Amino acid sequence: MSDVPIGILVCSDRAADGIYEDRGGPAIKAYLGAVLVTVWRPVLILVRDDRAKIANAILRLADDERCPLILTTGGTGPAPRDVTPEATTDVCDRLLPGFGEAMRTASLADVPTATLSRQLAGTLGRSLVINLPGKPSAIKTCLDAVFAAVPHCIDLIGGSRLDTNPAICRAFRPAPERT
Amino acid sequence: MSDVPIGILVCSDRAADGIYEDRGGPAIKAYLGAVLVTVWRPVLILVRDDRAKIANAILRLADDERCPLILTTGGTGPAPRDVTPEATTDVCDRLLPGFGEAMRTASLADVPTATLSRQLAGTLGRSLVINLPGKPSAIKTCLDAVFAAVPHCIDLIGGSRLDTNPAICRAFRPAPERT
Amino acid sequence: MSDVPIGILVCSDRAADGIYEDRGGPAIKAYLGAVLVTVWRPVLILVRDDRAKIANAILRLADDERCPLILTTGGTGPAPRDVTPEATTDVCDRLLPGFGEAMRTASLADVPTATLSRQLAGTLGRSLVINLPGKPSAIKTCLDAVFAAVPHCIDLIGGSRLDTNPAICRAFRPAPERT
Repeated sequence: MSDVPIGILVCSDRAADGIYEDRGGPAIKAYLGAVLVTVWRPVLILVRDDRAKIANAILRLADDERCPLILTTGGTGPAPRDVTPEATTDVCDRLLPGFGEAMRTASLADVPTATLSRQLAGTLGRSLVINLPGKPSAIKTCLDAVFAAVPHCIDLIGGSRLDTNPAICRAFRPAPERT
Repeated sequence: MSDVPIGILVCSDRAADGIYEDRGGPAIKAYLGAVLVTVWRPVLILVRDDRAKIANAILRLADDERCPLILTTGGTGPAPRDVTPEATTDVCDRLLPGFGEAMRTASLADVPTATLSRQLAGTLGRSLVINLPGKPSAIKTCLDAVFAAVPHCIDLIGGSRLDTNPAICRAFRPAPERT
Repeated sequence: MSDVPIGILVCSDRAADGIYEDRGGPAIKAYLGAVLVTVWRPVLILVRDDRAKIANAILRLADDERCPLILTTGGTGPAPRDVTPEATTDVCDRLLPGFGEAMRTASLADVPTATLSRQLAGTLGRSLVINLPGKPSAIKTCLDAVFAAVPHCIDLIGGSRLDTNPAICRAFRPAPERT
């Protein structure tokens, strides 16, 4: 069985222009390296804060690269250049409002400006897309808040199985019962 | 005064096909039997996980059966066959985001996968529609989280008055003041 | 430097018709008077619960009066005449879901019917628009829940700088870092 590809999409004018060293992508890579026991490999894309470019990158990670999980970083605030949630909405089949709520609630314990985050999550075929902030410490707070539900979500949409290190995150898979 | 009809809409392929005994409908009936002191009667409909069928059943419960409260069970997750929130959105006049937030927050104390629920609530004329999960224990968690606000909501949209047993749920009706 | 104009929009049939003395507008004015150290002046508009009239009033406060902050009061419930969130959605460029979530969560500690509030916030050019309830005590609860994030939000959309009295509200401005 081959490595599971996981999409990491950095949305940042300054990082794309090379005037700023991206710290969001490495933070996501480090988090996944610690939490996953499944063998995986990152598929990294770096784009400017451009709605169409971000949307196309998500489509490429889902349709061409077949990533069951796509994590974006950056572009979720209220500034005019922040368009990652719009691009995510453009391409997802359906949105999962519980992710944004849980990530904002967790982040609010750290900073009051978590209220300003528009980050969301959605599914696109067999891929789960989650918007994360740009700041490494905020990325960890957000992933800690939702990661236990990520593997089961991907099971439900038919993506590759992911298993976690229970010492770091106990992924929850309910017993197969459904009404 | 006649019994107040309350809609219970079971959304489940397997229950509709008779290969699975529905447990969501009976759980809702038991909850209402305990919480309401108003004399009521269930109007039960069982449908497959089909967006148009669910939407039509909600319309029938609201327009023909005149149910002030319509509780759906099942079909709120991220799987492709889960379409209850879409059908609810199709027919409701307006959505009440506080219900989904409160139900997910309460459910998160039980299971981390509550983040995956897309359940919502909305109004359709004089009817309040609330999506509930399929699992009986999750139904109770969700109704416990929001039921105190249900009678006043129905008052505000002009539906039949519902009174609760205060030993189980203290329905809140603010003093009639409005700016 | 001149006073910063702040929009206060009272949405109420009864207050507009003069059969009820509005208490929401004065409560907002008192709150801002205590929390802001920036010199400001209120721009007060009183309208009926009419979607087009509310939308036009928000546009006027944003485009003509150049208010960096516009606070509405009233019209956020599920009753048919409550249309402030719809009017706000009509004119805003983008919505900020974290505000509604944080205000409902805080209000739920006071009254269970906070679940029924549809209040939201959004940006319109360089203006931040926030829907508040009509009741003075609920206005205070909601502003307490979100005000620490308001000045930074307005910075991000290019509006006038607002500074707060830290004894009442410590406005949070993250260090200028962005990925």
